[in-house]
Amino acid sequence: MKKAYVRPLDIRRGQVDLGHGAGGKASAQLIEELFLPALDNPFLRAGDDAAVLPFGMPRALSSTTAEAPAGDLVTACDGHVVSPIFFPGGDLGCLAVHGTVNDVAMLGAWPLYLTASFILEEGFALADLQRIVQSMGHAAREAGVPVVAGDTKVVERGKGDGVFISTCGIGWRPAGLRIDGRQARVGDAILLSGPIGDHGVAVLSTRESLAFETTLESDTAALHTLVQAMLAVAADGIHVLRDPTRGGLATTLNEIARQSAVGMRIREAAIPVRPEVEAACELLGLDPLYVANEGKLIAICAADVADGVLAAMRAHPLGREAAHIGWVIEDAHRFVQMDTRFSGRRVVDWLSGEQLPRIC
Amino acid sequence: MKKAYVRPLDIRRGQVDLGHGAGGKASAQLIEELFLPALDNPFLRAGDDAAVLPFGMPRALSSTTAEAPAGDLVTACDGHVVSPIFFPGGDLGCLAVHGTVNDVAMLGAWPLYLTASFILEEGFALADLQRIVQSMGHAAREAGVPVVAGDTKVVERGKGDGVFISTCGIGWRPAGLRIDGRQARVGDAILLSGPIGDHGVAVLSTRESLAFETTLESDTAALHTLVQAMLAVAADGIHVLRDPTRGGLATTLNEIARQSAVGMRIREAAIPVRPEVEAACELLGLDPLYVANEGKLIAICAADVADGVLAAMRAHPLGREAAHIGWVIEDAHRFVQMDTRFSGRRVVDWLSGEQLPRIC
Repeated sequence: MKKAYVRPLDIRRGQVDLGHGAGGKASAQLIEELFLPALDNPFLRAGDDAAVLPFGMPRALSSTTAEAPAGDLVTACDGHVVSPIFFPGGDLGCLAVHGTVNDVAMLGAWPLYLTASFILEEGFALADLQRIVQSMGHAAREAGVPVVAGDTKVVERGKGDGVFISTCGIGWRPAGLRIDGRQARVGDAILLSGPIGDHGVAVLSTRESLAFETTLESDTAALHTLVQAMLAVAADGIHVLRDPTRGGLATTLNEIARQSAVGMRIREAAIPVRPEVEAACELLGLDPLYVANEGKLIAICAADVADGVLAAMRAHPLGREAAHIGWVIEDAHRFVQMDTRFSGRRVVDWLSGEQLPRIC
Repeated sequence: MKKAYVRPLDIRRGQVDLGHGAGGKASAQLIEELFLPALDNPFLRAGDDAAVLPFGMPRALSSTTAEAPAGDLVTACDGHVVSPIFFPGGDLGCLAVHGTVNDVAMLGAWPLYLTASFILEEGFALADLQRIVQSMGHAAREAGVPVVAGDTKVVERGKGDGVFISTCGIGWRPAGLRIDGRQARVGDAILLSGPIGDHGVAVLSTRESLAFETTLESDTAALHTLVQAMLAVAADGIHVLRDPTRGGLATTLNEIARQSAVGMRIREAAIPVRPEVEAACELLGLDPLYVANEGKLIAICAADVADGVLAAMRAHPLGREAAHIGWVIEDAHRFVQMDTRFSGRRVVDWLSGEQLPRIC
């Protein structure tokens, strides 16, 4: 699984740059060369956006064999630093709930609980804090996933930026279910739950004070009920689920290709993009394939269940515009290739540096 | 449980100040008047530093009765913003592990897993980041609690302060064990695992570049093995465990008094304080009762098991200087009173504002 980066991190003299947080190649390198060696364990090394864990009496406390658990614990954590904190279609509060609920749901688990750690900057308006926390509470109730523990720290003026929220999600997954980034198989279908780029463009347009003719809204949403609807029709046939957040569809497909040691071939014409997102991306010099989403998922499933899963997605409010965008293929290079609209074909690489900092 | 604050938060025009993060009265008010109403649920309302949760197939997914679980899930989360990030006896990395392991252990649970969210500032030295993450890994291995999921975000220069780490801990507690802040009973003994103030004074002396004759070190440590040793001698008799971090011994005792609706009477002469901490506090104008600890715990237990629990504490490397510092008494005002060294008696109030910002 070793990725050849152009050069190794210069840990002695190097510094953190914005690219290290953008979810692309630089982020992956930082994780591989700095975080993983220090914190190494099989759960972390799996490389998904959440971890699957046995739960029950630890061996340290018991001399008897641990009882067989009927399910596994799934956990994910996420720091949320989106700027600005209020944007069309959402805010930092609901984003923090949705992002973590989704990471748990993407392993096929049912999210049960959230925890939230707030890092506040001295001088931040209490009214804004209340609005963010109320939005968080609303999103949590709507998703049916309560925030069960929290913590608040305050740093001096100029040492933070209003409010950062780190959330952790805990979910339950039935024993035997195997859905993660390593399960994609040659011949599998690649499905996408709807149009890409809405979140990133909505945040960026606010940040840059751009006014588009149509108001673009973030797609931020909790996807666990969509996942359950999909599992209900084909629990065994769904191999990978992942939400294409930072780094967008392109980076997420590359991550999965690498984890599963496969290639992918997608069709540009099949990937839904709203015309206003397309127009905004052109204006801003962005490629929608790399723009963050917060309410979309990629599903990779066996060819024989693809139509059924796609139908289940389209029957759900959050999957109405779902599309079959490509296939998993054999490829020793683990490339993601795209048939372009103009009958060409190109390799869709990882996001290499930062495209949009602080997008989530 | 409503606490009468001098005046309610001015949410319309108010701002976050450093006192809101200090763990005293202002923190409690922010939680009660802003966070709790927005995120309200019974787990959060319990008011402990961790939450006890049922774990298993959610009712939403099953029409049959959920299986009776042999244990509960315990979770806690914490933001770590200590400044400076390196201090005598520890650093941000090990502190982030110990703090969260301890919050889980204080409900009598065995910590199983940690997650970590890193918020990095652009320009932060990779060498410092590596040192912090390696320290975290070392502390996690030493405690036997792996970091199973993580996330990294980067904010622009001047929008953060090097590195903040938010950790979430997940633990397992045998069914039937009841240890939390509401269980203190009149007549219970109050035990303390060792001398107070070491962590706060160690951090502050570094921050203020004070050189004391003796080098003071933070007491940062994972306390779960100490807790297990105590439970082994008196699982039923231990009613409350809590680590006196932000706000110190005084604030923590007040929190418990309020949660359990009792009073407390402690003896100043019985509270261990190292002479060098006492001297440093005098110099800095601090009261050691309010200074943060990161490797101490308070245990409130039935009088008939107190000697046994104290002996178990003293037999453990992290409880060698444990002491019996007072008793739980009846008091409608829920005051913590202290018999002073000079035969007087005074009320030991909550920390009212900020004593030491960014101490953990």
